[in-house]
Amino acid sequence: MGVFQQPVKEMKIMTDIASQMTEMGRQARRASAVLARTSTDVKNRALIAMADALVRSGDRLIRENEKDLAHARDLGLSPAMIDRLTLTEATIAGIAQGLAEVAALPDPVGKVTSMWRRPNGLLVGRMRIPLGVIGIIYESRPNVTADAAALCLKSGNAVILRGGSEAIHSNLAIARTLQDVLLDLALPETAIQVVPITDREAVYELLQLEEFIDVIIPRGGEELIRAVVRDSKIPVIKHYKGVCHVFIDEGANLDMAVRICMNAKTQRPGVCNAMETLLVHEGVAGAFLPLAAGKLREAGVVIRGCEKTRTILPEAEAAAEEDWYREYLDLILAVRVVRDLDEAIAHIEKYGSLHTEAIVTENYGRAQRFLQEVNSSTVLVNASTRFSDGFELGLGAEIGISTTKLHAFGPMGLEELTTTKFIVYGNGQVRT
Amino acid sequence: MGVFQQPVKEMKIMTDIASQMTEMGRQARRASAVLARTSTDVKNRALIAMADALVRSGDRLIRENEKDLAHARDLGLSPAMIDRLTLTEATIAGIAQGLAEVAALPDPVGKVTSMWRRPNGLLVGRMRIPLGVIGIIYESRPNVTADAAALCLKSGNAVILRGGSEAIHSNLAIARTLQDVLLDLALPETAIQVVPITDREAVYELLQLEEFIDVIIPRGGEELIRAVVRDSKIPVIKHYKGVCHVFIDEGANLDMAVRICMNAKTQRPGVCNAMETLLVHEGVAGAFLPLAAGKLREAGVVIRGCEKTRTILPEAEAAAEEDWYREYLDLILAVRVVRDLDEAIAHIEKYGSLHTEAIVTENYGRAQRFLQEVNSSTVLVNASTRFSDGFELGLGAEIGISTTKLHAFGPMGLEELTTTKFIVYGNGQVRT
Repeated sequence: MGVFQQPVKEMKIMTDIASQMTEMGRQARRASAVLARTSTDVKNRALIAMADALVRSGDRLIRENEKDLAHARDLGLSPAMIDRLTLTEATIAGIAQGLAEVAALPDPVGKVTSMWRRPNGLLVGRMRIPLGVIGIIYESRPNVTADAAALCLKSGNAVILRGGSEAIHSNLAIARTLQDVLLDLALPETAIQVVPITDREAVYELLQLEEFIDVIIPRGGEELIRAVVRDSKIPVIKHYKGVCHVFIDEGANLDMAVRICMNAKTQRPGVCNAMETLLVHEGVAGAFLPLAAGKLREAGVVIRGCEKTRTILPEAEAAAEEDWYREYLDLILAVRVVRDLDEAIAHIEKYGSLHTEAIVTENYGRAQRFLQEVNSSTVLVNASTRFSDGFELGLGAEIGISTTKLHAFGPMGLEELTTTKFIVYGNGQVRT
Repeated sequence: MGVFQQPVKEMKIMTDIASQMTEMGRQARRASAVLARTSTDVKNRALIAMADALVRSGDRLIRENEKDLAHARDLGLSPAMIDRLTLTEATIAGIAQGLAEVAALPDPVGKVTSMWRRPNGLLVGRMRIPLGVIGIIYESRPNVTADAAALCLKSGNAVILRGGSEAIHSNLAIARTLQDVLLDLALPETAIQVVPITDREAVYELLQLEEFIDVIIPRGGEELIRAVVRDSKIPVIKHYKGVCHVFIDEGANLDMAVRICMNAKTQRPGVCNAMETLLVHEGVAGAFLPLAAGKLREAGVVIRGCEKTRTILPEAEAAAEEDWYREYLDLILAVRVVRDLDEAIAHIEKYGSLHTEAIVTENYGRAQRFLQEVNSSTVLVNASTRFSDGFELGLGAEIGISTTKLHAFGPMGLEELTTTKFIVYGNGQVRT
C-alpha cells in the first residue's frame, strides 16, 4: 500500500510539507538507480501493461475525474479549461495509445553514440545513460501525467509529477494505475510519483531538492515558468515563449508563402510554434501583402503593421515597438517590411525568443545563410513554423521545448532525457 | 583603446561595479553574434596569430607577471602557488603551443550531427552552434586565461574571464595581447574580456547576468565552486570533487592491478582524477593487498583501511565512515574489502562523486556489468583513473569536467561548448 492510496485531505495534515517532499525525492532517487538498470524489454512490457491498465480502469478514472470537474465547475473555470481537464473513454484510449507508441520507440539508454581508439590502445566510447530523477510541473491536462511518466520510464528516469490542483484526483488516479503495474513487474512504485499536496508550498519545496532531482521541466504559461525558474535550486529546462517569425524573401513562390503563413498563423494560433511576426522583403511586399492579408483577414486575423506595411495595407493597425516582442497566442499578426535578409536576421536577433523561424525563398544562397546564421532552436526553409514539434521533427515524442541552449535546445524527445558517460576499455594502460 | 588598458586601480574607482559588469556582459553578447558567424579559417588564423603575439610579447608579459609575483611574495603565498603563478619564456611558449593545437582541432560549429527525412519530405537535421557567452571563474594560473579564451574562440563563443586577483596583471596583459589580434583581424575585441576588477563584488555581479551569459564554468577548489553555485543565476557546469574508486576484482591480473593503483594514486595525487578509495574483492584481498601496500608505502602513501583490510594489513590506520566520502588530494588512500561486484557498485553509488571509477578484472561479464551499471562520468576497465581527462580521452582539449548530468557529463572539450539547433529543408510543407 503506497502512500498515495491515502485520501488527499489526510495527506495534507499528515506532516510538514518540506519533509514529505524530501521523502518523495529520496524515494525517487532510490527508484532511479533501479530504473537505470532495467532492461528495455521490461520497460516496454510495463508501458504496454500500463496502456491496458488505463483502459481497464477507465470507469474509476472517469469517476475520479468527475470530482475534479465538479470542483472546477464550482470554481467557474472556463469551458476551455474544463474541456482540457475532462477524461472520457475516448481520451483515455488516446492516452493508452500514446503509451503503446512510447513502448515502440527505440530505447536511448545504453546506446553507444560513438567510439574511438586512442594511440595507447584505449577504446573510448560515449554511452547514453538516464539523467536520474526528472521533476515535471504542469497545468491542468491530466494526459500529461501519463505521457510524461511514460517518457521518463522509457528513458530510465524516475519522475515526480506536480500537476495543477484542479486535476489532483485525476492525476492521483492515473498515477495509482501506473504504479500498480510497476509493482506487478517488481519495479519500484516510487519511480512514478504524483505530488499529492495541492498547497503551493509543495512546489517550492520540490524545487529545493537539488540533492535528489536532476532537472525540472515546467510545462505551462510564461507565468508558471518564471515562478519555477525564480524558486528552483535545480536546473530548469524551459522556454518562456515563442515569438516565431516567417520571412518572405524577394522572389519567393507567393502561393507557397501564403500557404505557409496561413498555416503558421491560423492552424492553431494558441501554441508556441505559431507565427507571431511576419517579415517581408520590400521587393515583394507590394505583391505579397495584399494577397496574404486577404486570406489572413478571411481567417479572422488582425494585422498590426509597420509604416511601410500600412502604405500597402492602409486598413492595418499600427504596430508599436512592443508588438515586435509579443507572443499573441491569438489571431493577431505583427507585420514588418524589411530591406533585405540582413535586416530580417537583425530583427529576429533583436526581438526573437530563440524558438522557431522560417524563411520562404527560391534563392539558394539566402536559404543557406538563413539556416546558418539564425541561431534559434528550429530554423526552417519553405515550411511552416508549426513543424517545430518533437513528433513532427521525427523525435517520436516530446517532453517539452527548450529555448535555453544548455543540455537541450528545441523540441526534446527521449534522447534529451539522457546524458552520456565515457566508457573506456583498456588492457592495463597507465598514464605517463 | 580598450577599457582594459587603464590601470587596475583607476578602474576600481571608476564607476559602480554592477553597471560595469553589465556593460561587459552586453558587449560579450554583441561580440558573440559576430563570432557565431565567423569562419573556421578566420578563427584559426586568429589563434595562430595569438600564439605568435604571446611569444613576441613575452618580455612585457613577464614584466606584468613580475608585478603579481612581487605582490604574491608580499602576501606570503606558498611556493607552490607562486610556482603556478609564474610566467617564464618556457611557460609562455607552452601556452602559445596550446593555442596552435586548438587551431588544429576540428571546428565543431556548423557540423550537422545527423539528418533524416520525414514521411512528408522534410529533411531535418541537427547543426552544432555556439552556446553564446561563456563565463569562466578560476584561480591563480594565468595560462587558463589564454587556454580558455582559445577554446571559446574556436567554438564561436565570447568569453568573460575572471581569474584570481593575485594574477590580475598577468591576466590583463595576456588578454590585451589576444584582443590586439582580434582587432587586427576586424573581430570584436570584446569577444575576449578579462574582468579588470579584483573586488569580489565583481564575481557576484557577473553571476547575475543571466541575460548576457549562457553558462558559467568555475575551475578551482570545492569552496570556490560552491560559492559560485550559491550566487549564480546562470547555469553552472562544474564538479565539486573527484572521489574516484578502483575496484580490484577476483581473478584480476595482480601485476596490472598494482600498476594501475600506483598510477591512479601516486602519479599526481593532487588532481581530481586520482584514486581516493580502493575497493578489493575479498577473494583476492589476501594476495593483492600486501603486494599493493608495499609499493604504495614505498611511494609514501598512508593507508586507511576497513576492518577486513586491517586484518590483512595490521599496520594500516583505521578508516572512519567519513573517509569513504573524502577527496584527500594527497598521499592518503582509503581501502575497503568488499564481498563482490555488487557491494563494490553499492559502495560507489553511496559514497562516490560521479567522477571516475575503474575496475581491474579478467572477467568479461563483470567488466561489462561495471561499465553498464556504474553511472559515473567516466568508467574504465583495466586502465588508470588518470585517463579521465579531455586530452587523454581524445577530445583534443579540456575546458573543464562536469559531474552534473545536464548538458555535459565528464571531461568537456570543444563540442561541449556548443549546442545543436534543428535545421529543416522543406518545399512548401504545412501542417495538417
